[in-house]
Amino acid sequence: MDPFTLVQDDLHNISEKMLDSIKNEVPMLSSAAEYFFRMGVRGKRMRAAVVLLLAETLHVAPSASHPADTEWIATQHDRQKGVAAIAEMIHVASLLHDDVLDSSLTRRGVGSVNAVMGNKMAILGGDFLLARASVQLAELENTKAVWLVATMLDNLVKGEVLQATMADDSLLDFDKYLLKSFLKTGSLFAHSAKAVATVGGHSVETCQLAYDYGKSLGLAFQVIDDMLDFTASSGMLGKPAHNDLKSGLATAPVLFAAEEFPGLKPLIRRRFKEPGDVETASTWVFQSKGIERSFELASQHAEKAAQAVREMPMPNTTHGRRCQQALIEITQMVLTRKK
Amino acid sequence: MDPFTLVQDDLHNISEKMLDSIKNEVPMLSSAAEYFFRMGVRGKRMRAAVVLLLAETLHVAPSASHPADTEWIATQHDRQKGVAAIAEMIHVASLLHDDVLDSSLTRRGVGSVNAVMGNKMAILGGDFLLARASVQLAELENTKAVWLVATMLDNLVKGEVLQATMADDSLLDFDKYLLKSFLKTGSLFAHSAKAVATVGGHSVETCQLAYDYGKSLGLAFQVIDDMLDFTASSGMLGKPAHNDLKSGLATAPVLFAAEEFPGLKPLIRRRFKEPGDVETASTWVFQSKGIERSFELASQHAEKAAQAVREMPMPNTTHGRRCQQALIEITQMVLTRKK
Repeated sequence: MDPFTLVQDDLHNISEKMLDSIKNEVPMLSSAAEYFFRMGVRGKRMRAAVVLLLAETLHVAPSASHPADTEWIATQHDRQKGVAAIAEMIHVASLLHDDVLDSSLTRRGVGSVNAVMGNKMAILGGDFLLARASVQLAELENTKAVWLVATMLDNLVKGEVLQATMADDSLLDFDKYLLKSFLKTGSLFAHSAKAVATVGGHSVETCQLAYDYGKSLGLAFQVIDDMLDFTASSGMLGKPAHNDLKSGLATAPVLFAAEEFPGLKPLIRRRFKEPGDVETASTWVFQSKGIERSFELASQHAEKAAQAVREMPMPNTTHGRRCQQALIEITQMVLTRKK
Repeated sequence: MDPFTLVQDDLHNISEKMLDSIKNEVPMLSSAAEYFFRMGVRGKRMRAAVVLLLAETLHVAPSASHPADTEWIATQHDRQKGVAAIAEMIHVASLLHDDVLDSSLTRRGVGSVNAVMGNKMAILGGDFLLARASVQLAELENTKAVWLVATMLDNLVKGEVLQATMADDSLLDFDKYLLKSFLKTGSLFAHSAKAVATVGGHSVETCQLAYDYGKSLGLAFQVIDDMLDFTASSGMLGKPAHNDLKSGLATAPVLFAAEEFPGLKPLIRRRFKEPGDVETASTWVFQSKGIERSFELASQHAEKAAQAVREMPMPNTTHGRRCQQALIEITQMVLTRKK
């Protein structure tokens, strides 16, 4: 069974609420929002789904200050689910601004908002989502959660700055690649996972397990994403997209390949800007163990993520235990996805 | 005596800290930040100065839960001052993004960041400041303050959206003009003022007075700003800038003028886009009572602001009482400034 179906109603509600809030409050952004959300690709809601499954797995812990207070528990559980909406809004805001910064013309195979509706729409749309996310964050009434989400936003921006400013030699540095992957992807999963555990009133240890799960899952997800840029068929001709190479980015497959074929290094340093660089780099990647080693790296992170879930306290409902199982299944799904 | 000198050390610290944080964490943004902050125009720190003066006037109230706890009082007072830095960072972030959205080439007489360093720097710089502001906001550990600041950010974005999307007929609507002025300027003053009172542990009534002061002062400030676009000499030739007319915006002076000269209405609706429209509109404004009535409107708001300060509890230190007096003086300074 698809692990996402366990939280599919909540997932649907989050998208609809986000869309409604945009339509009602800023009608001018409606078409951009419709356009963006109706593309309806699974990957886009990965973050919200993971957070919602965590909210069920780490349902509100009994509290000394509110013993058996069902109303309080319901409120806190709704707030846990609220973290999913906040994470998704911040993620979408960052995509909108990233595409403007990178002048990207497409996003998951369709035209980006900036390409179709202009930079203005994309910047305003991103700012609007950030502002709405802030208001919803305030409504959680949890100072620790505010700090976690603020840190995640801070990391996202630092990741974008790092990507935009890497010195040519740093492009060869695997640690920098991992740092950037954490800042841009791992941090959002890690901090929103920890926020759910925190709002649920869980112990420091459980909050840390949630963080570990999010961080490792996020890294696995990102490394596979980078691998798919080489291996997944895309577009009409079914050829790999090579978007990263075209943007001058050296990711795991090409960095591993460069260890076997040092001739790749000058291409990495010059950001694959000479004619033929993209094709040459791709060829070397496939002649090397680059793809294999990237998959191994992602598998290690996926296993770490699964281990963190296994160490979480056992939920006391069947639904909770199913959701816990789903979190483990997702670590495998991330590895086997084809696009 | 200049009312700003009472808080000049704190004001200086805020700018330096903001600059240091940018330089250390994202060196790539250093030159943009230096460029922006070193312009050092008074107007730019108006928000921080007002918040700091309020922090002294509404110094931490004695609390039942922390009677005579000087350490706690010092922490809370530092947090009150932290609101000033947060307000300033959000303000600067909004300027950076606004200039990209409006494709503005200048900001207070010098080239805008987007014009001099590109849109990418301006968008990233704005995002970075918003993210840092969120982290500092989290550190206040005050859920009400988080809500107030989130609402202010939400208002700022809505103001920008409203400005970007006004229907031609709405351009004639004075209420829409006032709403936009509140969202883009009044709200930031109002919510940060209320946040200072809230963090200081003041009563609901005092928090409301702080809000009223900020709102009215912000509106007075904005209306005068709009008036100065017609009356202040600017640039080498000493002619009024008419930036608003050139951007297609109808502000108080021109809206008042249109009541006397209905011939202005078609020009407003077409956003002064025909050749000669800007000059014609300006001439009509000066033949009408537009400037006079704008000044009157600003004076009414300034007086409301002063009244709110007079109703605040009397500070129990000389310094506090001086700062309270300074808040009143600022309501007059806003009216008499020449640029």
